[in-house]
Amino acid sequence: MAIPMHEHIVKSYDDEQKRLLDETLRMGEMAAAQLEAALDVVQRRDDKAAERIIANDVAIDALEQEISHDVMKLALRGPMARDLREILAAVRIASDIERIGDYAANVAKRSRTLNQSPALPHIAGLHALGMLAVAQVRDVMAAYRDSDVELAQRVRARDAEIDVAYTGLFRELLTYMMEDARAITPCTHLLFMAKNVERIGDHATNIAENIWFLVKGELALPPREKRDESSTL
Amino acid sequence: MAIPMHEHIVKSYDDEQKRLLDETLRMGEMAAAQLEAALDVVQRRDDKAAERIIANDVAIDALEQEISHDVMKLALRGPMARDLREILAAVRIASDIERIGDYAANVAKRSRTLNQSPALPHIAGLHALGMLAVAQVRDVMAAYRDSDVELAQRVRARDAEIDVAYTGLFRELLTYMMEDARAITPCTHLLFMAKNVERIGDHATNIAENIWFLVKGELALPPREKRDESSTL
Repeated sequence: MAIPMHEHIVKSYDDEQKRLLDETLRMGEMAAAQLEAALDVVQRRDDKAAERIIANDVAIDALEQEISHDVMKLALRGPMARDLREILAAVRIASDIERIGDYAANVAKRSRTLNQSPALPHIAGLHALGMLAVAQVRDVMAAYRDSDVELAQRVRARDAEIDVAYTGLFRELLTYMMEDARAITPCTHLLFMAKNVERIGDHATNIAENIWFLVKGELALPPREKRDESSTL
Repeated sequence: MAIPMHEHIVKSYDDEQKRLLDETLRMGEMAAAQLEAALDVVQRRDDKAAERIIANDVAIDALEQEISHDVMKLALRGPMARDLREILAAVRIASDIERIGDYAANVAKRSRTLNQSPALPHIAGLHALGMLAVAQVRDVMAAYRDSDVELAQRVRARDAEIDVAYTGLFRELLTYMMEDARAITPCTHLLFMAKNVERIGDHATNIAENIWFLVKGELALPPREKRDESSTL
């Protein structure tokens, strides 16, 4: 994607800030759509579509660069209080979305490796886990659009569901690998794909925390339940 | 670690900026030390020491909060050009270090799970890989301290070495798992520990890119060699 030329006419601060929010929302939706497409490609075993998803990731990276550029321009106008927090939140949120895009692209990349082995029954489990994460990303971006702290907090609380589903899938995959040595390589890739999705959930949570900071002006949040127990299985 | 009270006397901008740099450098060294300690604990199979490392991670998180607080204070003074880039770079670098700390703590956490099975020969490979990452983190923080773009670029280029070592270890572990089903669970944890280290290398690279942006004032960098081929094995 080509980065559009930045206009040289002076726009109002509000217009520039609106543009920054719109870019960040667009970036978020691109990352959610990439993840959804990657999960679909895993099920359809479609190498060509996987390649397109991998190639699309540069568009998300380009948008992050554009956001950084716009943030610098806005920061030079010396914003205060909420305006300043808008800028810091946009930088951090764009960085989280960029990582979500990377993880989605990695799911697509590993799907091509999976397609070299017979289909695994656990693909359905990955899809269910992944769709939870897609919903989290879309909901947290809606919370960002509307400065909705309550929705952001619900997203943050719901991350425990992803952790539980991930831990369950992790356990199932280990058992399956022990029963069939030929499944070890594809199962390992599926483990990493599931981990990518679990990490996407963490990034949605980071975004939720930035919305809290943006609206409330405080960094400290109430403690959160964590349910990823896979490290100790 | 208790967060020290912020002083109410007005300090010079330079003093505040120096304080921000010092905090970020301290945070970086804490993360490097945590990773080094975690790698050591894996070799010594010391559950008690692993617990201390896991507990120490909150100190790194607290320092990130302190840095965010100081960034907000500095930003309110309306900095321009390089001063403004110092602030944006500090936010991003602190966020990368926070993740490095998380990955180091996860290495310690998984070491406790590894200790429930007989020692694996691949622990030496993890240690070697990890020490490459420790060096990368220390070097990139030195580059940040000295605004040394050349050193930052060398760190960025060297990330390919970590990728190659990680891909080799990934391949070895897969082979080992296929030969001995009892090794599947510990080898899977070792795979994730190696992946944590590989990700730490990526975060060191992110920091290097922020140093480029800080010093040069440009976001675009020359393309970089990537050698992590584990997704396609």
